[in-house]
Amino acid sequence: MYKNEKYLPLDAMKYPRFCGIGTFMRLPHQKDVSEVDIAIAGVPFDTGATHRIGARFGPEGIRQHSRLLRYYNPAQKVHLFKHITALDYGDFSIMPGYIYDSFDMITEQAYELFKQDIIPIFMGGGHEVSFPLLRAAYKQHGEVALIHFDAHTDLWEGYFGGKDMNGTPFRRAYEQNILDVAHSIQVGIRGPLYDEDDYTISEKLGFQMIDGPALHEMGMKACIQEIQKRVGNKKAYVTFDIDFLDPVFAPGTGTPEVGGFTGYEALQLIRGLKGLDIIGFDIVEVNPSFDHAGVTCGMAANMMYEFMSLVALRNKEAP
Amino acid sequence: MYKNEKYLPLDAMKYPRFCGIGTFMRLPHQKDVSEVDIAIAGVPFDTGATHRIGARFGPEGIRQHSRLLRYYNPAQKVHLFKHITALDYGDFSIMPGYIYDSFDMITEQAYELFKQDIIPIFMGGGHEVSFPLLRAAYKQHGEVALIHFDAHTDLWEGYFGGKDMNGTPFRRAYEQNILDVAHSIQVGIRGPLYDEDDYTISEKLGFQMIDGPALHEMGMKACIQEIQKRVGNKKAYVTFDIDFLDPVFAPGTGTPEVGGFTGYEALQLIRGLKGLDIIGFDIVEVNPSFDHAGVTCGMAANMMYEFMSLVALRNKEAP
Amino acid sequence: MYKNEKYLPLDAMKYPRFCGIGTFMRLPHQKDVSEVDIAIAGVPFDTGATHRIGARFGPEGIRQHSRLLRYYNPAQKVHLFKHITALDYGDFSIMPGYIYDSFDMITEQAYELFKQDIIPIFMGGGHEVSFPLLRAAYKQHGEVALIHFDAHTDLWEGYFGGKDMNGTPFRRAYEQNILDVAHSIQVGIRGPLYDEDDYTISEKLGFQMIDGPALHEMGMKACIQEIQKRVGNKKAYVTFDIDFLDPVFAPGTGTPEVGGFTGYEALQLIRGLKGLDIIGFDIVEVNPSFDHAGVTCGMAANMMYEFMSLVALRNKEAP
Amino acid sequence: MYKNEKYLPLDAMKYPRFCGIGTFMRLPHQKDVSEVDIAIAGVPFDTGATHRIGARFGPEGIRQHSRLLRYYNPAQKVHLFKHITALDYGDFSIMPGYIYDSFDMITEQAYELFKQDIIPIFMGGGHEVSFPLLRAAYKQHGEVALIHFDAHTDLWEGYFGGKDMNGTPFRRAYEQNILDVAHSIQVGIRGPLYDEDDYTISEKLGFQMIDGPALHEMGMKACIQEIQKRVGNKKAYVTFDIDFLDPVFAPGTGTPEVGGFTGYEALQLIRGLKGLDIIGFDIVEVNPSFDHAGVTCGMAANMMYEFMSLVALRNKEAP
Amino acid sequence: MYKNEKYLPLDAMKYPRFCGIGTFMRLPHQKDVSEVDIAIAGVPFDTGATHRIGARFGPEGIRQHSRLLRYYNPAQKVHLFKHITALDYGDFSIMPGYIYDSFDMITEQAYELFKQDIIPIFMGGGHEVSFPLLRAAYKQHGEVALIHFDAHTDLWEGYFGGKDMNGTPFRRAYEQNILDVAHSIQVGIRGPLYDEDDYTISEKLGFQMIDGPALHEMGMKACIQEIQKRVGNKKAYVTFDIDFLDPVFAPGTGTPEVGGFTGYEALQLIRGLKGLDIIGFDIVEVNPSFDHAGVTCGMAANMMYEFMSLVALRNKEAP
Amino acid sequence: MYKNEKYLPLDAMKYPRFCGIGTFMRLPHQKDVSEVDIAIAGVPFDTGATHRIGARFGPEGIRQHSRLLRYYNPAQKVHLFKHITALDYGDFSIMPGYIYDSFDMITEQAYELFKQDIIPIFMGGGHEVSFPLLRAAYKQHGEVALIHFDAHTDLWEGYFGGKDMNGTPFRRAYEQNILDVAHSIQVGIRGPLYDEDDYTISEKLGFQMIDGPALHEMGMKACIQEIQKRVGNKKAYVTFDIDFLDPVFAPGTGTPEVGGFTGYEALQLIRGLKGLDIIGFDIVEVNPSFDHAGVTCGMAANMMYEFMSLVALRNKEAP
Repeated sequence: MYKNEKYLPLDAMKYPRFCGIGTFMRLPHQKDVSEVDIAIAGVPFDTGATHRIGARFGPEGIRQHSRLLRYYNPAQKVHLFKHITALDYGDFSIMPGYIYDSFDMITEQAYELFKQDIIPIFMGGGHEVSFPLLRAAYKQHGEVALIHFDAHTDLWEGYFGGKDMNGTPFRRAYEQNILDVAHSIQVGIRGPLYDEDDYTISEKLGFQMIDGPALHEMGMKACIQEIQKRVGNKKAYVTFDIDFLDPVFAPGTGTPEVGGFTGYEALQLIRGLKGLDIIGFDIVEVNPSFDHAGVTCGMAANMMYEFMSLVALRNKEAP
Repeated sequence: MYKNEKYLPLDAMKYPRFCGIGTFMRLPHQKDVSEVDIAIAGVPFDTGATHRIGARFGPEGIRQHSRLLRYYNPAQKVHLFKHITALDYGDFSIMPGYIYDSFDMITEQAYELFKQDIIPIFMGGGHEVSFPLLRAAYKQHGEVALIHFDAHTDLWEGYFGGKDMNGTPFRRAYEQNILDVAHSIQVGIRGPLYDEDDYTISEKLGFQMIDGPALHEMGMKACIQEIQKRVGNKKAYVTFDIDFLDPVFAPGTGTPEVGGFTGYEALQLIRGLKGLDIIGFDIVEVNPSFDHAGVTCGMAANMMYEFMSLVALRNKEAP
Repeated sequence: MYKNEKYLPLDAMKYPRFCGIGTFMRLPHQKDVSEVDIAIAGVPFDTGATHRIGARFGPEGIRQHSRLLRYYNPAQKVHLFKHITALDYGDFSIMPGYIYDSFDMITEQAYELFKQDIIPIFMGGGHEVSFPLLRAAYKQHGEVALIHFDAHTDLWEGYFGGKDMNGTPFRRAYEQNILDVAHSIQVGIRGPLYDEDDYTISEKLGFQMIDGPALHEMGMKACIQEIQKRVGNKKAYVTFDIDFLDPVFAPGTGTPEVGGFTGYEALQLIRGLKGLDIIGFDIVEVNPSFDHAGVTCGMAANMMYEFMSLVALRNKEAP
Repeated sequence: MYKNEKYLPLDAMKYPRFCGIGTFMRLPHQKDVSEVDIAIAGVPFDTGATHRIGARFGPEGIRQHSRLLRYYNPAQKVHLFKHITALDYGDFSIMPGYIYDSFDMITEQAYELFKQDIIPIFMGGGHEVSFPLLRAAYKQHGEVALIHFDAHTDLWEGYFGGKDMNGTPFRRAYEQNILDVAHSIQVGIRGPLYDEDDYTISEKLGFQMIDGPALHEMGMKACIQEIQKRVGNKKAYVTFDIDFLDPVFAPGTGTPEVGGFTGYEALQLIRGLKGLDIIGFDIVEVNPSFDHAGVTCGMAANMMYEFMSLVALRNKEAP
Repeated sequence: MYKNEKYLPLDAMKYPRFCGIGTFMRLPHQKDVSEVDIAIAGVPFDTGATHRIGARFGPEGIRQHSRLLRYYNPAQKVHLFKHITALDYGDFSIMPGYIYDSFDMITEQAYELFKQDIIPIFMGGGHEVSFPLLRAAYKQHGEVALIHFDAHTDLWEGYFGGKDMNGTPFRRAYEQNILDVAHSIQVGIRGPLYDEDDYTISEKLGFQMIDGPALHEMGMKACIQEIQKRVGNKKAYVTFDIDFLDPVFAPGTGTPEVGGFTGYEALQLIRGLKGLDIIGFDIVEVNPSFDHAGVTCGMAANMMYEFMSLVALRNKEAP
Repeated sequence: MYKNEKYLPLDAMKYPRFCGIGTFMRLPHQKDVSEVDIAIAGVPFDTGATHRIGARFGPEGIRQHSRLLRYYNPAQKVHLFKHITALDYGDFSIMPGYIYDSFDMITEQAYELFKQDIIPIFMGGGHEVSFPLLRAAYKQHGEVALIHFDAHTDLWEGYFGGKDMNGTPFRRAYEQNILDVAHSIQVGIRGPLYDEDDYTISEKLGFQMIDGPALHEMGMKACIQEIQKRVGNKKAYVTFDIDFLDPVFAPGTGTPEVGGFTGYEALQLIRGLKGLDIIGFDIVEVNPSFDHAGVTCGMAANMMYEFMSLVALRNKEAP
């Protein structure tokens, strides 16, 4: 009945959901990924934070609030564990305070996952981790289209004289030619900027951008069509900065921007990625220190769940 | 001018709303209900919690945040105390930790209210209390149609080997034939499930179900029409699980599910029950330990106020 | 490039946004306003609070969460400091506990700003401060149209035997004939009232009122048209009570009313004031004691930013 | 067995302590005090706050956290309700924002209690309420010795040009000759002052003062001896400002001063008042907005309980 | 160098302490205890809560805040992992809401540990779990002396008509003759009681009791001597209710009692158990819902660490 | 009367303490230090955090909670502004994420203060900032004795392969021979360590260490004597890590260790430094994200105030 009984969450009928070691979804924790479709890995690095800091506790927070996730997703009409196997890989080894050493460590560890032909789901950490993660994706898959949900383009040249902060990952990735820019899209961008160039930079570099007000205006369904059209049949990597959501839906983050989106809208967008050839997913900038009652962490856990469901659906439809 | 001057909230012009003993809406507290239309009673029982627990403090929390409610409801265009009399009955006696003893105690005490031909408004407690409350309703009114707002069907067979938790009340009620299932409806159901059967069970047992995504799609007005059509002129009982709301609108609850509804949407739905023959109302799963600034408790208090307004409207229109 | 280099926020490339003395937007703090277009002043008076109190810390809270604001507003397509100069004037001297002395002090200090032909932005404090602020506006500008966003009309006759609380400022202003009522409008009014008269009073006194449910129904764009039509080319003063927002978007306030509006809706409304002849702006009832993660304070700071952008746009288009 | 069965808390064996209307200790709420020894009354007035404000919610907060109090006090070895009768009188009517009207209202209502020869326990509100309370005490009892626990002398001449704030009650009382200064004592005074005179003023006016460092040095037992010696057989009134405690033991207050005392030390001091002829007690400056998990409110409730125990002991020993 | 390299916490030099799956102290999680001295097990059962509830999240909370614990304990001068092996066993399977089923399940699972001749450390859950845990201890070890730190005797006959709540475990244990009462001691008892009998019951049943005020008076060193003398060379079981601590040191608990003890005093007491023949340890009533910044959970984790150090010391001194 | 009227806090009689821009103690903010004795500077750098991070907000948090400080210190019997002049210098420019660039920037900016012969008070930031601060002190004053209050020695060799984190500043300073180790002392050290060497390292390198248990045992007065004896007439620098305090007295910090000290004990120690030749002071590891009601920040502000009082006393006694 299940794809593999070894890779199931702790049985909720014997161990109510508040019981047990807090892995993601209470899945098994192991380093051997040879039998699974999906590996969930924490990347608790936040040295690149330009404002509020503490996303290093993001993986712990998300795991803690993933206890309520269950097997069957009625919105996507798929039973996850009939079609996928998954595990919690634990966290990557990183070196807080040391950006470049850590980037190398992250790329190396992420590549260990990518190269085994599984789909990794990464929990940041700050958005700076997406750059070394994309380097690893590139190593395995070549150029990938970026599907980027965020309040910020994260295409800044640098900050304070440094070049690698949570506002720069995609500029660095762009410079290294590891993105398939022509099929990449940024969604939800909004909020005050240093200059007008910060707004035009996305399209200038070749990305498509749907900014926040435009997204409010067009609605989620139209946006899904834009994404599907833009990405087409290219290999894609999804990066979700939790500050895409309105600060009220994600208080636990570092650089909140008002005028954002609801949890339901975010769920719609992820569900709308159905059919795309996605090779990896990250969710970043979850900072439990500023969360309340787990609304941010719980939302992040659900986004990951919806992404897992996409993979399950794909396996179900094309086993 | 008022229906009965004895049953008014404390005078806010002499005692500002932060003053005075914290009964619901600062109404009089007494056990004699012989002169009133509505009795508000707490049912602080939460032993059936499957995840976060603490709804035993729900009644206290709701009362505390009901201080801002006032006499005239401009949305429903009715002055409550010109058309109804109401009081705070206090809390039921219960036995925490002892489910079956408590269920019997709850049924008995609720029946004391129902049998005096008043409309009770119950503040839970966990959703398990709806089962003994419905038993009491049945004793007085026979089968009632259920109007059920919730993220979950609460039709589970059982948990952990036990049969009575906050996910089972309507299964038990169904089994005891105390519901008029053919006129019952469940609204807002969403979130991960153990299995596909958990999703289809509602309609399989004969309920109508409008799930969360469907409700988002159709909007509140269409939903109101569905409810009105389904219930018709049958006697109905309304049960409102606060987790119908999005976790951001109701952080203070036990099993939050993302992708839910706003406070305004919930208000619209309650206001849309106008004209139905409702014999009782409960609001459950309010857990102040996880609330912030009273947003959950205040929302619950307002839902009760809107329900009281429905009764006032009915009395006004058909005195 | 900038209108005046002396009046810029602290340089974020040298001093990351978490650094430096917490003036509004990290602008210079000085009392000499002779060179600026806009002065931002705190009015930390809250003695008129009828329920939760503590808006005296509103200015500190808003300043603290204004650190993330930047120069260029992509939604309004304007670079603020190319077109305006602004500073943080600090707080007015007030006498907590002494309403009438404080009102006189506030009027006097506000007039010092108005008379220098600048546009002041005031941070309350409770809504009672709008009355002395309007007296000062009148002294300089004569009758002004009121554009009033709020959950409450604040047109009450009085409370508890006193006449000046946070629910009365516009009744007092009306009585003193300092408002151009025929061009004034109140938007967002909702929630339980003492009596039906509290609802009809607005139109009875000559204001236009768009209540909460009506606003939900018509949407923001239609509302903007109503405001533009009502105010026309009259001099106008904007007062924004943070409880216009839903309690979930503004938990940090004194008399929250459920069923309110989102942050994005509020942003849309402010942006929609483009082209009007606005001579001053206040934002009131921000109470940091009940806020979480700065969602309320940050929202207030952004509203002020959008208003500053309106002024910048005006200067840009008609220098 | 009990002094009067009518005046007992709700039965905890039938109604667990989280149940029921939140009166103090779940005692009966009524306005008729003719049969009781002790009446507990809230005085939710805080207009005199010089810094953090919100003590108007003090009575509600204390009542909420008084649910755990029980009949028998093992520390004082007395069963309260075998020797006393008590009730919750509710809150006084006050006029927030209007100091002098409110002072008159408070004096009048407090005198209604004093004149019936009962011992009132008042829950503030800010410390400014002690002045009108003492006026009422004086009217019934003449000059009373003051036993004053606080971080501040509250003997300031005035603030901001006004004369009645939470730092002035005992200066006003001194000026009106309603204190028996020669038998009065202030304990726990500490923290930065405006000037040296603020420190010497206490003894200059004739009070005895044991400041914070002195109290740390001498210990609670020696302090108790000093109080007993100072007060002797005079009629005394006890006023307890919760900021006597260290901010860690009472975060929920308006002007916290570091270097204070523990909860246990405060309990020792109240217990040490045994044998004195105390005619009234107030506990002030409890501000639930800044409390956490009820540590401040719970401490206040326990202080009141210890004071009730003193009265019970007196009745027991000299019935 | 280490006793067994397999049983070490995650390497903090490669994985900073905020990284990795949150087992206790980041020790390995496995069910096979055949190679270890100590097994740490969660018992997340809280159905017996008489007031605040939620200790089911105690194990998760303690694990989360155990990340800062390190190998060498300078206070006890012992390096833990040179002398002991330990693991995180995970949580016991329990049935929330069903007391008697759960008690049987707990006894059975605990006996699985005891019988393998290891020393278990249990994390509650409510204090009711100590009764089934002691039944398991008895099955392996026979009668054990109880070393009981608590604000309450937990010797109540019953509550609300039921017999098994968090205030009754030692009465039930007493009745079943599984305690060596003559060598048992209760320390820290304080706070209001239902009746005088609740105070005398401890000694009446044969326990030694050092109540809270007595402990404050005698100090920790004298108390340690009393415990050592009382227990002597008997097999002993230590149960530590976190409410032994003052509510300020343990806000995260269910029935806080003021006038308690500091964290340092608790550490002293545990360290003072050196040399006793302790066969098991539990720490109960940790409720993270009411904690702040992990002060309660962190304190609990440290108590467990000190207990582990006692075992390490014993092994070091008598290998 | 005052040493210089230009350098006084905002007048609290005109601007109540909740008013005005939040500089430290509401002192003037300027960069010109030529006329002052003391400059208060923020060093909001926290990239070296090994566990919880966010001390970058320390300066803002301390400033916010310094509003209650007043002119006269009764504990030290000195009026500050009769004997000193002081200002708030604002924050240093730093580069978050870039340790070595930032260290150079900090040293340079701190030296700008030291070289003008004033006494700087630095607000961290993490403890890593003490190393570049000491380099600056050395440049001006040569070797200084270190008076170090902390739960940790901060003498670690390195972490995770890097050498500069918040646990290493004094090891680096030691290696660079900028400390007068023979007159240096570390006080309050406690908590679990990686190895025994971490405990003995302090004395091995030549520091005197009074660990936590020893300090509890000897008391503050004896400790003061030890410090005075150790430091003698050498130039000294005081560094105060807020985690010297018990986690309950300083929840807002990064690596809390239980079993610490009270606020009053810390005040006693600072006051006990009277007479020493102190050339600078820093207070570090204040992390407002984990604070509650300002207890940590307020404590830090008071420590700085006590240090300012020491300087005032010195000026008073030897002008």
